[in-house]
Amino acid sequence: MRKFVDFLAKSQAQQGSLLCVGLDPDVEKLPPAMRAHRTPLFAFSREIIEATAQWACAFKPQIAYYAALGAEHQLQQTIAYIKQHHPHIPVILDAKRGDIGATAKMYAREAFERYQADAVTVNPYLGGDALAPFLEYRDHSGADKGVFILCRTSNPGSGSIQQLHSRAPTPVAAAPLGVSDGAAEPQLFSGGRSVAHQVATYAAEQWNDNGNVGLVVGATWCREIAAIRKRVGDMPLLVPGVGAQGGDLQAVLAAGLTAPRAGLLINVSRAILYAGNGRDFAAAAATAAEGFCEQIQQFRRRQPTQPAKPPQATAT
Amino acid sequence: MRKFVDFLAKSQAQQGSLLCVGLDPDVEKLPPAMRAHRTPLFAFSREIIEATAQWACAFKPQIAYYAALGAEHQLQQTIAYIKQHHPHIPVILDAKRGDIGATAKMYAREAFERYQADAVTVNPYLGGDALAPFLEYRDHSGADKGVFILCRTSNPGSGSIQQLHSRAPTPVAAAPLGVSDGAAEPQLFSGGRSVAHQVATYAAEQWNDNGNVGLVVGATWCREIAAIRKRVGDMPLLVPGVGAQGGDLQAVLAAGLTAPRAGLLINVSRAILYAGNGRDFAAAAATAAEGFCEQIQQFRRRQPTQPAKPPQATAT
Repeated sequence: MRKFVDFLAKSQAQQGSLLCVGLDPDVEKLPPAMRAHRTPLFAFSREIIEATAQWACAFKPQIAYYAALGAEHQLQQTIAYIKQHHPHIPVILDAKRGDIGATAKMYAREAFERYQADAVTVNPYLGGDALAPFLEYRDHSGADKGVFILCRTSNPGSGSIQQLHSRAPTPVAAAPLGVSDGAAEPQLFSGGRSVAHQVATYAAEQWNDNGNVGLVVGATWCREIAAIRKRVGDMPLLVPGVGAQGGDLQAVLAAGLTAPRAGLLINVSRAILYAGNGRDFAAAAATAAEGFCEQIQQFRRRQPTQPAKPPQATAT
Repeated sequence: MRKFVDFLAKSQAQQGSLLCVGLDPDVEKLPPAMRAHRTPLFAFSREIIEATAQWACAFKPQIAYYAALGAEHQLQQTIAYIKQHHPHIPVILDAKRGDIGATAKMYAREAFERYQADAVTVNPYLGGDALAPFLEYRDHSGADKGVFILCRTSNPGSGSIQQLHSRAPTPVAAAPLGVSDGAAEPQLFSGGRSVAHQVATYAAEQWNDNGNVGLVVGATWCREIAAIRKRVGDMPLLVPGVGAQGGDLQAVLAAGLTAPRAGLLINVSRAILYAGNGRDFAAAAATAAEGFCEQIQQFRRRQPTQPAKPPQATAT
């Protein structure tokens, strides 16, 4: 019985990569030749998959781009294509689902049966019982599925809920590390525990009985990655926000890498997908993916091997 | 330019009802005659719509039941059917979407363009900037859409995040009002503000510039309905959890009604949809819907009219 975390770790080792390629095919941004295609989202994604598979340890299709257009069939085609041509690379369906038990069960079927995803992203706002249908899911062979729970999302306003905090005497101003847009943190206090940290704690202590939980932590909040890493050991962290959103790759790696398991999935979507917009878009995507993969590997080669303890986030 | 809140208030007045009929067509629970249909979810929903439209002020289809089966087309048919045959009854798409801005925009298109919903349920975990594409959406005629933000959900485990609370000295044991299953509240403290109350506060003070926000508050937490009502004035509250989930209808009404606007949408799904399972399932659904509608109206007739101030939650 395959476990998702082993599948992912094996892919990361074989591919020599921690790069997750996000498939967010916005039809308005596609190269003209792809836009004219009868199934443009699939045609584009297939080109991107072939161009980047060498540098990727996972693919992460974003369902919203298909759902907006009524193009679920193209999402199915895309995932089936990966399964057929790159069966050793896990597929994480980015759906951010969350609903009460009976309904969550339907969403689990959507992700794992209809789309055959190996993992899914979910929203923790409804609590652990709402996550159970994803956490406990087994396919016909008994294999589990990966469940990446939103913890600290990459958007500027993520703090309004995720940084709500146990009350403490002195409010402290804090700037996110690795972004320079001055996005304000509406609620950050010096004591207690934030909602995001509570989610990380639940994930580590209550929700991971089956060993299939990961967390989503935005690259735009590097200090958070380091703090959450301390709470959750070598649990996989899926980190979006490098590239178009401005997260600092080196800082993410310093904060989130663990050894011997990598424990980190660096997602890049737009900076790869739209690296070029002409006839050479696929070649441009390959070059961009190679660049991210290489930067990550260079950083890893510089790191001392620390068999069990997660490395401290040291400025290099 | 139609505003969603006016559309809803007009429907509630014309229909003489606060009942929202939830369309959660689980194919395994359908009456045999419906299950054999080529488009079973639509066929069943159409029968339910015709049987209950007289008693309903809104319909709330749950997208997960369609998505699990790849039956989005039947969801489109269902909503189109309501628009054609009962155009004065608003459709709330229960999708609980939530994602960062660029992706949330795609989900807004899914709900409002593809499915032509009048309102949608959304998840606040990602913060206000992630809700903006829903809050700011206008259709080609300039009409807004209703946005029901999850605040306190009806499931037993909803407190693990939603009741995380500002730190205060003394933990207080609390039992939900209107449910008897003894579902524990993991984190309820006597002081400060819970995450759910903070969401209600954001909704009232920051997110409702366009006057199109509502909140989802489970019928299983009646004290919460009363407390949230005090924070948000006559903002519409969508209240699931009456019926199969065991919420107490009278207690919900006592806690949540406002005047002159009703400000309350009582959702019932399973207790209407599956009131019967034989050939008479539609008649059974009609009887169930009439029963809920009548109970609500009886309660309202007993209430003294209080033009502006929300009534106190008095035990009757």
